[in-house]
Amino acid sequence: MLVLDAISPAPRCLRMFLLEKNIQLDSQFIDVITGENRETEYLSINPAGQTPSLQLDDGSYITESLAIAEYLEELYPQPVLIGNNPKERAETRMWWRRVELNITEFIHNAFHYSEGLNRFKSRIPVVPEAAPGLKMVAQDRIQWLDSMMHGLYLCGDRFSAADIWLYVWLDFANQVQVNQPINFSQLKHLSSWFEEISKRSSAQLSQKPLHEIKKNS
Amino acid sequence: MLVLDAISPAPRCLRMFLLEKNIQLDSQFIDVITGENRETEYLSINPAGQTPSLQLDDGSYITESLAIAEYLEELYPQPVLIGNNPKERAETRMWWRRVELNITEFIHNAFHYSEGLNRFKSRIPVVPEAAPGLKMVAQDRIQWLDSMMHGLYLCGDRFSAADIWLYVWLDFANQVQVNQPINFSQLKHLSSWFEEISKRSSAQLSQKPLHEIKKNS
Repeated sequence: MLVLDAISPAPRCLRMFLLEKNIQLDSQFIDVITGENRETEYLSINPAGQTPSLQLDDGSYITESLAIAEYLEELYPQPVLIGNNPKERAETRMWWRRVELNITEFIHNAFHYSEGLNRFKSRIPVVPEAAPGLKMVAQDRIQWLDSMMHGLYLCGDRFSAADIWLYVWLDFANQVQVNQPINFSQLKHLSSWFEEISKRSSAQLSQKPLHEIKKNS
Repeated sequence: MLVLDAISPAPRCLRMFLLEKNIQLDSQFIDVITGENRETEYLSINPAGQTPSLQLDDGSYITESLAIAEYLEELYPQPVLIGNNPKERAETRMWWRRVELNITEFIHNAFHYSEGLNRFKSRIPVVPEAAPGLKMVAQDRIQWLDSMMHGLYLCGDRFSAADIWLYVWLDFANQVQVNQPINFSQLKHLSSWFEEISKRSSAQLSQKPLHEIKKNS
């Protein structure tokens, strides 16, 4: 299998997932800054023009970071990051979806419509006037998510893929969206959660593309 | 198990999924128009205040329609609506996520911020100025999804949960968001797809709440 990797939050989610599961895969680096992912060769792989993608051994491709993570968990169950049984998997998927539909996609879209506008306006439909409001929603829903948490992780005592996705996007918002850093001091659970996740070696290593991680390992 | 059901697109997705899989579950009807889902009793079940929810036999709850569907597919594999193997499941999840993150959540949020504004402004953070732009994105991404399709269904020849979720939300957009009906005549694949899915008995029956479907079956 081959990972089509890039410097961007969604591929970083996948890298952190791979590191946590100790899965080593070959990779090809796609330069999303110059728009290599919007060129014909990449679009023939993933017509959605997004990264990451996973090339399977039969030559076909899976895209969407979450679908790739689910696929790899089925192939390499241990260590478990989605769930040991249907109920655990349902719990992870519930939190994962709360995270994506209420927080990370708002951060993602608001970035496309503001700080990322110059890069994205020729690639996807953009809505600049929506950006401040979408950022406000993300901030509100971070508080809302925090108020629903019990235990250190989203799934209580169990570290899961949902934690990875939330961590990577909050780290991105904090670094890139300089006009709206996350106010962790106001967050009862996510404050210590963020500090705890930051200490994992996967959190640090996943900032680099896969070929650099491999070279240094 | 008990489904907490309502008249709203997400519970309708679950109803159509249950009908396609011939799963009969007990249900309790929640009146989302009067805001029963935002009252203390329901919030103690699902603090996110959204429908549907699934109460398990041990008294715990799963929320988020997609997580519930994945759970039920694990318990009742046949007929298969997510996939027969890891690759098929990955393909369904890829399309499901393309549908949700690019189309149905834009329709959903734009509805909250425009036609649904009076109902939702006291319940969730709203961004009225974003509504026209988000509707434009949904329209654009419907064309984009259409351009990536091969075969009758999203997963080619295989009808899947991704088709159900897209169908229910496009039907909702067509009926409720009267200012932006879907222009099916411009869609090469989704035009005949919508007509085909509409003919399924699950598409018609799922418009009613579960307790009425049960009574009439």
